Formats: sequence, C-alpha cells, structure tokens
Amino acid sequence: MKICWFNNDLLGVVEGNRVYDVSAVLAALPTPRYPNRSGDWVIAHLDLLRERIEQVLPSATSYAVDSVAFLSPVANPGKIIGVPVNYQKHVEEAAADVATFTGRETGSVLEQGLFLKAGSSLIGSHQAVTISMPERLTHHEIELGLIIGKTAKNVSKEDALSYVAGYSIALDMTVRGAEDRSLRKSLDTYSVLGPWLVTADEIADPQHLDLRLQVNGQDRQVANTSEMILYIAEQIEWASRFYTLEPGDIIMTGTCEGVGPVVDGDVMRAEIESIGVMEVRVVNEAK
Amino acid sequence: MKICWFNNDLLGVVEGNRVYDVSAVLAALPTPRYPNRSGDWVIAHLDLLRERIEQVLPSATSYAVDSVAFLSPVANPGKIIGVPVNYQKHVEEAAADVATFTGRETGSVLEQGLFLKAGSSLIGSHQAVTISMPERLTHHEIELGLIIGKTAKNVSKEDALSYVAGYSIALDMTVRGAEDRSLRKSLDTYSVLGPWLVTADEIADPQHLDLRLQVNGQDRQVANTSEMILYIAEQIEWASRFYTLEPGDIIMTGTCEGVGPVVDGDVMRAEIESIGVMEVRVVNEAK
Repeated sequence: MKICWFNNDLLGVVEGNRVYDVSAVLAALPTPRYPNRSGDWVIAHLDLLRERIEQVLPSATSYAVDSVAFLSPVANPGKIIGVPVNYQKHVEEAAADVATFTGRETGSVLEQGLFLKAGSSLIGSHQAVTISMPERLTHHEIELGLIIGKTAKNVSKEDALSYVAGYSIALDMTVRGAEDRSLRKSLDTYSVLGPWLVTADEIADPQHLDLRLQVNGQDRQVANTSEMILYIAEQIEWASRFYTLEPGDIIMTGTCEGVGPVVDGDVMRAEIESIGVMEVRVVNEAK
Repeated sequence: MKICWFNNDLLGVVEGNRVYDVSAVLAALPTPRYPNRSGDWVIAHLDLLRERIEQVLPSATSYAVDSVAFLSPVANPGKIIGVPVNYQKHVEEAAADVATFTGRETGSVLEQGLFLKAGSSLIGSHQAVTISMPERLTHHEIELGLIIGKTAKNVSKEDALSYVAGYSIALDMTVRGAEDRSLRKSLDTYSVLGPWLVTADEIADPQHLDLRLQVNGQDRQVANTSEMILYIAEQIEWASRFYTLEPGDIIMTGTCEGVGPVVDGDVMRAEIESIGVMEVRVVNEAK
C-alpha cells in the first residue's frame, strides 16, 4: 500500500494515478494524552489504520496524482538518522575534492558513525527546497529512505527488516562547509521524503533497487542500493545498539556518487525502483 | 514559576519543598489533530497554562519534593541542540588529551557548529543514566539547558532571549570514540534535563549563573555561565539562521572544564544557581 499525506493534511492512499482521501480513518486513532512519547501516532498505529483503510477505500473521494500537493509521508518523526559515505564511489569522490567536502570527516561509515538531521527540516515532494544561504554550495543527495514501524532496541541484522514500516525516496540536502553535519544538513526544507510511503510488504528486496537523480533532465546520480557499504539491516542493527528506534523514525540510508550543486530554479527528479518518482523544485528564499 | 512533569506523567509546580499537582490544567489544552507539527504541546501553550495554574494552585494536592520522581520537564522536544567546546578551559583540556577526545573535531565552536542529540535519549533527574557500553568511557558534561518557547527564525541576538520559555539543568552525557557526536551523545538516557523548568522571568541573567557538578561528593566541574565563548543569545541567533526553532526545542549550551568518566554506582549531583539541584544515578544496563 502507498500511503501519503497531501494537500491540507489529508491522509491518502495512492493506487495507479489516483490519490484516495482516506482521512476518515484517523478517527480510529486512540486519543493521545499529553505527554505522548509514542513516536509518530499514525505510523505507530499503521496496522490498525490499514484495516480501516481497506474498508473506506471503495467509497473514498479520489484525485489525480499530478493534481495534489504531497507532504512528507511521516508527519512527526522522532528522529531522522543519516548514514555518511555509504557507497564506495561516493567515498572516492569526497576524498578527491577536499576543498568542497573538507577533510574533517574521514574514514569509513563505521568510524564516522550515524548522524542526525533535525525534524524541523523535513518536507514533502511538493514543497520546494529553499536555499537560505545562497553564498554556500547546496548539494543534492538521493537516498533510499526507510521508516521504522515498531520500537527497536538491540535488534539483530537478521530480524532488522521486520521493524520497517515502509520505504520512501529521500533527499538529504546538504550545505557544504566546516560545521558539524547535523547543522549543515538540517536547514529548513533540507530533508525531503516522498512522494509517499510504500509499505514494506510491497518491496521484495530493498537492498536491490535502482535509484536515479536528475537535475533539469540530466543524470547526476545513478546507482543501485546493492552497492551500499553498510546494508540496511546492518544500519538498523547498529543504530539500535546506541538508541531505541521508535515508530516514525526515518533512516536516510546513504547517498551514492554524483552529488553536486543545485541552485535557484533547478528541478530535481528523483526515482527509486518499486517506490516511484518525485520532482522537487529548488528556489532561493524570498528576502 | 518552576514547572515539572513527575511520577506517572503528572504536571507539577514546585514551590519551596513542595510539588503541587496541577495536571487538571491540561484539560485547557486545545485538542491536537494529527498530524500535529506545533512542537511540544505544553510548552507551546505555556502562557495559557500558567494562567490556569494560578487558579488551581491554591487547592492543588502537594507532595514533598524529595518524595516524587521527576521526569524531563520537556516531554516531546522537537530537537535537542548541543554546543561543542563552548568554554575555553574545556577547549584546552580536550586538546591536551587527543587519546580520549580524538582529533576529529578541531577548531572553535564557530567552526565546529551546533550538533543534535536524539529526543529518544532524554530523561528526567529521577531516571538513572544507564550505561549500555561499559567497555567505553562515558563522560559527564553539566550544562545550562534552555527551552525555546516561541517559534524563532532569523532572530537577532538582541531579541533572542525573548524566545526562551525557561531554563533547566542539563547533562550532556557522552560516550567517547571516533563516531559522529550526534551518535555518541544520543544513547538512551544520555540527555538529562531537570529537575524542573524555571520560567525565564525568574532568571535575571542566565549569562551569569554558577554551575557545579559533583560525582560521589567530589567537585568535578565548577564554572560560571559568564565564561562561555558563544553566549546564549548568540547561540539562538546562530541556530535560527540555519533552522526554525520551535516550542520545546532544547539547547544544551555547552560544558565547562572538568569533564570525566562515570561508572556503575556513581551519583552525580548537578547544581545551577537560581535553578536548583538534582542528583542523578549512574547504573550499568541489566544484561
């Protein structure tokens, strides 16, 4: 099932070229009582909601996919986790251009560790990446995004994928510079997730998916998730040794070679096999 | 006003040695509709709640301060922001011990940038810091914690303090090693905030507060917030150039010299002038 948030916070299901408004099922969510520490409320109750969605879908209002505005398919992520330099050819391109990538962060992904991006940076595919520091380079990084569905602590790589609710296309936008990654990758609009969440049961092998990012129609990043250094299941195992993964937590699983700059007016087209395609605009912040 | 969460998610106000249960005011909160992207719901509505608290306080049930279990005074922070090496003498001690601190992160706080800690790492003063990697060094870092009260983007340092809801004592617990800070500082229980939030109107000058951390009765860290390299107002200005600060976001404003290891069985006593004192236990994770 392809699940999304769209327009004015409507919950949707995508089938073919149509988006079905299934917001009525949100009434089935348990009433949260503050403080609520359960992670994203919709992702935490996704199994319950899927049952209800099957019931309302036949009579749901629908819209053409290209007529709606997709928001992030996770509304309130507890944390957004990044995986640095997780494709060998990207390691090599970073090492070859110290002027851009700086020499601060060296070594393999296992030495560098996972990083965090701010939840406040998250947008959906309809919302433009907005450059607020045009004096610096902003780079595109396409990544397979995964959304945790169940609380996970100290899980083994053999069990890890059973904790995944689904997959999306992710853009880990990055301002280059010397500061900590978690700052340079957390500007508002610098985490894109979309266009929808494909539930895990529909992705036979997430470790073997083609991904492609074009800017203004030209290929920039083309790879397959099989080329990762640290596999998805290993990422979950490793992360869950350090901290508890909660429903709605997002892992952006690392980018491949070909990262490069985008500027005001560019259009990024990101595609991942079995998930879909999204086009994301780049604009300069209005002054 | 000193505001806290305590025991089984009760909202409290501390006066003298008593904690007053003012949970009844939570009924005044607007009903959230998912998805809710407004930051922490209680901090976002603190002005409204304070009015109601004044009304219920005279008839509220109270408990002795030393009889209750304090939880984090922010239940659902959107992000927890850290400020690296923000006291000159801590810069010097880190530079003098590369074996422990590694040479990965060099330069001033302005070069190193702000970092993030996972919200899932946050506990209150009654919950023990739990060491899950006893084979590594875990260091204590006492810091003045501040809680953002209003949405802030591109604010000037002159206006910055008006966006602060209040202050708490923070412990930025850290596992040493080569990985990204945002991983090593985000283990479960490695962010302590407590024992309560003191509203900003009660802190005349947050940039001139004594802070002290003892382990098992011995002084480890003793300093004053006036010794910071990057002042609190400058931290807010800088952070808000990169991303939007939201109600309930926490800034841990940097630690002073004297950081050192803690182990199973230790008790940390953290005190900041005008805020209070908290004792936090250190235990090894049960295997």
